[in-house]
Amino acid sequence: MSPRLFLNLLENNWGNLASSDTLWPHRKLKTNADRLCGELYFMNGADALIKALADAGVDVCFANPGTSEMQLVAAIDKEPRMRAILGLFEGVVTGAADGYGRMLDKPALTLLHLGPGFGNGSANLHNARRARSPIINMIGEHATYHRQYDAPLTADIEGFAKPVSHWVGLSASPESLAQTGLDALEVALSYPGKVASFIAPADHAWTEIDAAAVPSTTASTPAPAVVHDDTVAEAANALKTGNTAVLFLGGMALREEALFQAGRIQARTGVRLITETFCARHQRGAGRVSTERLPYFAEQAIAALEGTDQFIIVGSKPPVSFFAYPDKPSVLVPETATTILLADPRTDALDALTRLADALDAPAEPARLQTRVLHKLEPGDINMVELGKVVANRLPADAIVSDEGATNGFGAFMYTNTAEPHDWLMLTGGSIGQGLPLAVGAATACPDRKVIALQADGSAMYTLQALWTMAREALDITVVLLNNRSYAILNIEMERVGVAESSTKARSLLDLSNPDLDWVKLAEGMGVAAEQVVSVEQFDDAMGKALATPGPYLIEVILPGYESA
Amino acid sequence: MSPRLFLNLLENNWGNLASSDTLWPHRKLKTNADRLCGELYFMNGADALIKALADAGVDVCFANPGTSEMQLVAAIDKEPRMRAILGLFEGVVTGAADGYGRMLDKPALTLLHLGPGFGNGSANLHNARRARSPIINMIGEHATYHRQYDAPLTADIEGFAKPVSHWVGLSASPESLAQTGLDALEVALSYPGKVASFIAPADHAWTEIDAAAVPSTTASTPAPAVVHDDTVAEAANALKTGNTAVLFLGGMALREEALFQAGRIQARTGVRLITETFCARHQRGAGRVSTERLPYFAEQAIAALEGTDQFIIVGSKPPVSFFAYPDKPSVLVPETATTILLADPRTDALDALTRLADALDAPAEPARLQTRVLHKLEPGDINMVELGKVVANRLPADAIVSDEGATNGFGAFMYTNTAEPHDWLMLTGGSIGQGLPLAVGAATACPDRKVIALQADGSAMYTLQALWTMAREALDITVVLLNNRSYAILNIEMERVGVAESSTKARSLLDLSNPDLDWVKLAEGMGVAAEQVVSVEQFDDAMGKALATPGPYLIEVILPGYESA
Repeated sequence: MSPRLFLNLLENNWGNLASSDTLWPHRKLKTNADRLCGELYFMNGADALIKALADAGVDVCFANPGTSEMQLVAAIDKEPRMRAILGLFEGVVTGAADGYGRMLDKPALTLLHLGPGFGNGSANLHNARRARSPIINMIGEHATYHRQYDAPLTADIEGFAKPVSHWVGLSASPESLAQTGLDALEVALSYPGKVASFIAPADHAWTEIDAAAVPSTTASTPAPAVVHDDTVAEAANALKTGNTAVLFLGGMALREEALFQAGRIQARTGVRLITETFCARHQRGAGRVSTERLPYFAEQAIAALEGTDQFIIVGSKPPVSFFAYPDKPSVLVPETATTILLADPRTDALDALTRLADALDAPAEPARLQTRVLHKLEPGDINMVELGKVVANRLPADAIVSDEGATNGFGAFMYTNTAEPHDWLMLTGGSIGQGLPLAVGAATACPDRKVIALQADGSAMYTLQALWTMAREALDITVVLLNNRSYAILNIEMERVGVAESSTKARSLLDLSNPDLDWVKLAEGMGVAAEQVVSVEQFDDAMGKALATPGPYLIEVILPGYESA
Repeated sequence: MSPRLFLNLLENNWGNLASSDTLWPHRKLKTNADRLCGELYFMNGADALIKALADAGVDVCFANPGTSEMQLVAAIDKEPRMRAILGLFEGVVTGAADGYGRMLDKPALTLLHLGPGFGNGSANLHNARRARSPIINMIGEHATYHRQYDAPLTADIEGFAKPVSHWVGLSASPESLAQTGLDALEVALSYPGKVASFIAPADHAWTEIDAAAVPSTTASTPAPAVVHDDTVAEAANALKTGNTAVLFLGGMALREEALFQAGRIQARTGVRLITETFCARHQRGAGRVSTERLPYFAEQAIAALEGTDQFIIVGSKPPVSFFAYPDKPSVLVPETATTILLADPRTDALDALTRLADALDAPAEPARLQTRVLHKLEPGDINMVELGKVVANRLPADAIVSDEGATNGFGAFMYTNTAEPHDWLMLTGGSIGQGLPLAVGAATACPDRKVIALQADGSAMYTLQALWTMAREALDITVVLLNNRSYAILNIEMERVGVAESSTKARSLLDLSNPDLDWVKLAEGMGVAAEQVVSVEQFDDAMGKALATPGPYLIEVILPGYESA
């Protein structure tokens, strides 16, 4: 049905209405000729904004627009350098921007519909803020003069944006909208990345401005902080004297080159290399420096760090327990250890590690780089261990893994340490529902690399709409959907917080059965081909097929469910 | 796999760890005998909170908990009066609480996981705030002493909550947690309802307190404001003198008894009765007073109100354009009209209308109550009009309609004016993704009434996880899924804001095809039986079957897609 027909139908039923010609005054004010002619001399605020961002190299917009963003959509439409990708829920949009930013170290643009639209995207922006990913959020807003009337969608957009943004900007005029966008870009590019949000009122977008007023500048990239020589010397000294020293690595220290330098330091001093529990992007596998991972549960982390006397942090901050538990400590590093913050997350990690290695007269190369290992499979019902082996054996070189596998993802993480070289992306902020959107963004950023989304069922449900975008954009993603029909981690946590005698009612809040989710149908319902596997052999075959075929594919792996201890 | 087995597996692979016995110190500290004995004299903060809320009549908790809420889950588990309903996404949880609150005029409890979990629920809380629904949000938080460490899920929860809450409370101690919950309840019960959120730190939940410290009070229900006699007299006078007067009705003025009084006023004065465009809960159909609905598009609304000289508002506020458009007005009431605010949304609407009717010496009854009309169907491909007739013909008495039908829902709204009596619930805050969760809440609140969710495809995708809760709880909901494979309203709006020449790229951001969504598979994937219909006859049959069968059922109605004018 055409909009004209639709409105006529409304009128015929509602009555008392003037001709529907009044609904398109713009058609009368502007003929196509007027418009074409006008475009030689004028553009509106939206056009200027999108042009300025495209000039500055921003070339992807993940979008979920509404009426107040139609002029921004039109401007994106006119700008051939800006790719537009629709998400059917804002959490997909923001999670995709996170994945894109992690892989390219430059921001994608998001397009979000006022405060509540931003709210839907806020959980994955929380994760992105924790990952320190570069992102620009472009948030539509009512026309400035319309706000006073408190229309239904009016909300405190700044209030929505602040808890998950490093910076929130508000356009002051049609002429300054483009500059506001460039300001956001500059913030987003702060090493290693920031979440920058700006508010674009509809009238600033639609008002025509003088093309000469459009900023011609590109945004400058702020330089990262650099570690002081004294701190390098202090760390070098600590490593020389420390009996049991740890280099605690996170953020940009987990890129291949930085890890290479950490490996040089290890070759010289025997220091342990331990990574954050949840890393934004960890370059690992064959040919790279191997690391330990700090365990998730506080008791295990404390045990892992026991006896450490020198704790040197690069690209991260002191590790703490993910949650608090009754009568258990929050801090994981032994009280007796000396902690040295060599480089916080905003300080150049590669530079810091290189200078530390040089200060130690470390050898030119690590003592050992990881080599590839193929694992022998045990046929039969699949479990976390065999799943991990299959993923590790099958992982193609340069693959990207979006890991939201939760409890059943650990096996794959462990075994891929000796797989082909790859990038491993994790849930940085603890707000589940990141994995599938992150895969969308990574696949958009790196169309020549295979993406594997290692995805737990409970977490997948938060943003399952990402599957549709995978299908529409034909993204090269293999989703390994780990279906254990429960929030397994919560069953474990339930006991850990001291609640051991819960009943059926409490358990019902932690399990995903009754009814079981059928991920093959859910995937096919959104246009993604899928199959279910229950055995190691089936999974191995399915992985082989999926990885050999371009485009999205979902493998639902039925895993053992939760049983009480 | 048991949690113990899982952790052993982790340890075997991670190495260097102490015995996993350290993971459950509580098991050592407390034997079951200790616990049982202790429970005679002590309870923890969570137990006290849930008991106090149950004592005060709160008996449903829509929940999506995480680790920091395990003690709250355990407390709910122990309280037999509190029903627990799991949503697999927080937008389902908050939207369900909205539907529950609208139907029962008392709040359900939600259980949400820290700031980002609240963020996922914020869009539907925006809608609930606009609907003035009573809701209590119980938001888990890290233990107070743990916040300083900035663990990954740490966030500004108050910042998340404020934009969509009328009130945000923070527990000050384990002993005061229960009172904080009761404070929230009292706020939520403010006529007609408020969104009250409170933050429950994990240590306040798990710390044992003296049972004698638990508040024994129930929350008091604040009385609504009452209209002043002078205002009633002013309105009566305006209606006596006005040539073309309008009673503009919203909020609690749309309940059957209030509309009855409005009908008395109309019988006396001939005043037009016009409702808000989007009503929280409108009691309509046979035996009730018929009203006009203010059109959505500003030009149509202005035309509908043209010539009005007295504009009297009850239970609402002056209507404004939903969005602003270039060169179009925001205000809909003619400048020449006199506006009288008889009762704002927080003032007792039934009382105001009754006193106004009495002041006018209105007859005891309206001149006319709506009678039921059966509509003759035109067989063939289905469209908005025939769909409306089928819904109207088939609607059972006392049905509840959750209307997020968007463009294709208008037909059903119009025809059901003469259907069996029913409650019609609408999208109050403009943030799409309300409809399915709202149906969950309404069906939970009113298990003996049939719920029909009239649901557009684009909107449904935001919170499709609601289907799973419908299946798990066997809720008596018929979902009429209106699949036109586009954000049809945005295609219309695109032209209305003056963008008539958009290309494939812009259109791609507004359509939901490529790939088409298969709602039968999506529903079945979440355990809801479903079928697809394309003709009027098929839809009529499917509705008959669905309404005759208890439990959830989804009918995917394939409607004409969008075509450019």
